[in-house]
Amino acid sequence: MTELREELIESIEQHFEKRELSQIKLILSELNPADIAEILETFPNNQRLLFFRLLKKEDAAEVFVELDGDTQEALIHTFSDNELREVLDELYLDDAVDIIEEMPATLVKRILKNTDTETRKSINALLKYPDDSAGSIMTPEFVDLKKDMTVEDAFKRIRRTGVDKETIYTCYVTDASRHLIGVTTVKELLLHEYEDMIEDFMETNVIYVNTLDDQELSASLLGKYDFLALPVVDMEERLVGIITVDDAIDVIQEENTEDIQKMNAMLPTEKTYLKTSVFETWKSRFPWLLLLMVSATFTGSIITGFEEKLKALTILTAFIPMLMDTGGNSGGQSSVTIIRAMSLGEVNFKDYFKVIWKEIRVGLACGVSLAAVNFIKIWIVDRMLFNNHEITFFIDLAICLTLVVEIVFAKFIGSTLPMLAKKIGFDPAVMSSPFITTIVDAVSLLLFFGISTAVIPQL
Amino acid sequence: MTELREELIESIEQHFEKRELSQIKLILSELNPADIAEILETFPNNQRLLFFRLLKKEDAAEVFVELDGDTQEALIHTFSDNELREVLDELYLDDAVDIIEEMPATLVKRILKNTDTETRKSINALLKYPDDSAGSIMTPEFVDLKKDMTVEDAFKRIRRTGVDKETIYTCYVTDASRHLIGVTTVKELLLHEYEDMIEDFMETNVIYVNTLDDQELSASLLGKYDFLALPVVDMEERLVGIITVDDAIDVIQEENTEDIQKMNAMLPTEKTYLKTSVFETWKSRFPWLLLLMVSATFTGSIITGFEEKLKALTILTAFIPMLMDTGGNSGGQSSVTIIRAMSLGEVNFKDYFKVIWKEIRVGLACGVSLAAVNFIKIWIVDRMLFNNHEITFFIDLAICLTLVVEIVFAKFIGSTLPMLAKKIGFDPAVMSSPFITTIVDAVSLLLFFGISTAVIPQL
Repeated sequence: MTELREELIESIEQHFEKRELSQIKLILSELNPADIAEILETFPNNQRLLFFRLLKKEDAAEVFVELDGDTQEALIHTFSDNELREVLDELYLDDAVDIIEEMPATLVKRILKNTDTETRKSINALLKYPDDSAGSIMTPEFVDLKKDMTVEDAFKRIRRTGVDKETIYTCYVTDASRHLIGVTTVKELLLHEYEDMIEDFMETNVIYVNTLDDQELSASLLGKYDFLALPVVDMEERLVGIITVDDAIDVIQEENTEDIQKMNAMLPTEKTYLKTSVFETWKSRFPWLLLLMVSATFTGSIITGFEEKLKALTILTAFIPMLMDTGGNSGGQSSVTIIRAMSLGEVNFKDYFKVIWKEIRVGLACGVSLAAVNFIKIWIVDRMLFNNHEITFFIDLAICLTLVVEIVFAKFIGSTLPMLAKKIGFDPAVMSSPFITTIVDAVSLLLFFGISTAVIPQL
Repeated sequence: MTELREELIESIEQHFEKRELSQIKLILSELNPADIAEILETFPNNQRLLFFRLLKKEDAAEVFVELDGDTQEALIHTFSDNELREVLDELYLDDAVDIIEEMPATLVKRILKNTDTETRKSINALLKYPDDSAGSIMTPEFVDLKKDMTVEDAFKRIRRTGVDKETIYTCYVTDASRHLIGVTTVKELLLHEYEDMIEDFMETNVIYVNTLDDQELSASLLGKYDFLALPVVDMEERLVGIITVDDAIDVIQEENTEDIQKMNAMLPTEKTYLKTSVFETWKSRFPWLLLLMVSATFTGSIITGFEEKLKALTILTAFIPMLMDTGGNSGGQSSVTIIRAMSLGEVNFKDYFKVIWKEIRVGLACGVSLAAVNFIKIWIVDRMLFNNHEITFFIDLAICLTLVVEIVFAKFIGSTLPMLAKKIGFDPAVMSSPFITTIVDAVSLLLFFGISTAVIPQL
């Protein structure tokens, strides 16, 4: 794939130099818009407009959609009004809105000036929906049928209006006041006779979302029901748009990236990694690092509180990193598992006691097995092999007891905090490893010093 | 949604008690298969078969697919051969294979005995593809056309054979020896005249995968090109199946879950959280905890090496947790960002130097800003407010210098290791926070003790 692309780019470059534009046209006409967009972006800015002008008219808008925001902006700047209008005419409305949202105000003005009144009205309506709402990703272009149409009427309507629709395969049946009363598919239509009436076979139990519902809900419904499109209704339950399955995939990937960023102590960024500037990356990473750094100083002050005892038995200090890391990792495992299970809808707050009961048992199993390994390792490797006779049976015991208790605690707090966060309306993804680690670190040290004082005779 | 479901379940239970089965039938006939499956699973095992028998025939197989493995197994045990055959006849082949893969050998035998010879042959062929390959998730049921068909012929063929196909909207054009030579869609067909020839408008630049390609590749191609289905060819380039977009969504979610598990020191599990037993959960978590615990003891031995100096200046110990946590978090941020960018195809190994150069600058920015905050905080809070005059200017300086250097190092190693892992064929997701943290911990301590010895006059 990549090799083929390199070859293509090279041969296009050569044709460019020799001004063999018809050759380039020929190559491009064979390619998929997504691939053309990738190739176009490898060319320098001043050649991109020329490159774009070589595209078939029906491809141009599709290629344009696949370009990244900066390239789109640069191209629009160099477009004539005529060219701009041609591209805009071919864009699906949801794509047009996505593009406009990224543009500076002056360009938006120019774009809107070059659309017809009706389109402009639709675009302005779509722009008003909040970020991440179903309304913001829907397209108002869908096939609507009436219940008293026959299959033949339906096909006529699809043939007449379908060319501009993003998908024609799911058709929505609306009444006179545009309320959604049924749904059918082209597959159903094809499998029925020409004279059959839509209302006799349409599905009346329609699953839909509201314009203000979260885009994540739409994506998960599309995934759950294996639909190709999901209808979106407004406050008055009128059908105003649809969300197509390809948009759902984008939403799923976006939301996953956002979750992964939050789980690892970063504020979400919207751009791809290489397009994000150093300053923006810093801005997304610094706040959490700062918060966690300041929190970790509390852990430090716990050590200060035990300074005298540590002076008496410095060997204990050597086990602090192991205890802190293991606690943090154990808690992180639980929190991440629960956050993911909640975001996939596998676990709800009503499962809280089931979850905790399970995590405590897993924690005990992990704790006891790790402690057993550790006990033997400390005794054989640290005491006998490295001849470190400072290590007594009681020290070994204190370390391993701490391990068991801290792991059970880590699993408990690691599963509780994300569920609690969700319950009170916060994003559970934030309650993940780094945050849990900071809490578990402090508790682990308190446990370690407490257990050591109780168990080790010298202290 | 959930409230509605609770109500539904309650009313079905009441009808059950009163033996009003036709009422239940009526309720179920209105629901979507995915919802029926969810409701069925809330009923006790001994009622499920009765419940299942109330379903409309055309819904039964669709509901069955949505059930989880244990329920499917229990139901098959109680099915008569006749019932089993009815469900199997209605299943799409890829779903049948998914189900069979989870069943014990005796049940598989019974299932295969109840399918006709041709289906059995197809199922056996599909079962042979490796896990996670395109072949293992494809279905051999697709619409194939010939290039010399007219639009009218094509529609006739779709009407005749379409009812059994998972999707009819993408149609593949094959030659006499089943080689894939083109693709078209029902939308294209609908927008052309009845007498037009397929070969005059079919798309000949077909994007496809090989049966042995990774399922992740198929999913990402479906996402990239916004296809509804992707053709799969065998070693001889013959069309053998298709992968539909709803399967791609499942693959994307599965792969994301797997990545998140690996990123957080867990071995991937296939079942949902609540279905995974305590022992299985332990098995997925213990190995990484053990490995990281043992690695962390090296960090401990670094402390042992500096025991004498720490005895002289115990206050340094108090800053170890903060330095370790901040280093680990910084490295985790980078590794997770790079792993995600690679899995989305945004970053490749050829971008290595771009990535490193960026991470080093972000590291410097984070390091200097955190060090500045920390320097002032230690001076004002720890020294002046808490009157801790053990802290000198040089101690403060050593801590903050360590912060800057360790963060730059953490960002460097956190972005390098995942890229290197991918380059040599390992899964980069494993090179994430917990693993990076362990390395960064050790290096941070070495830096801390080294810089302290150089900077602080007492040491």
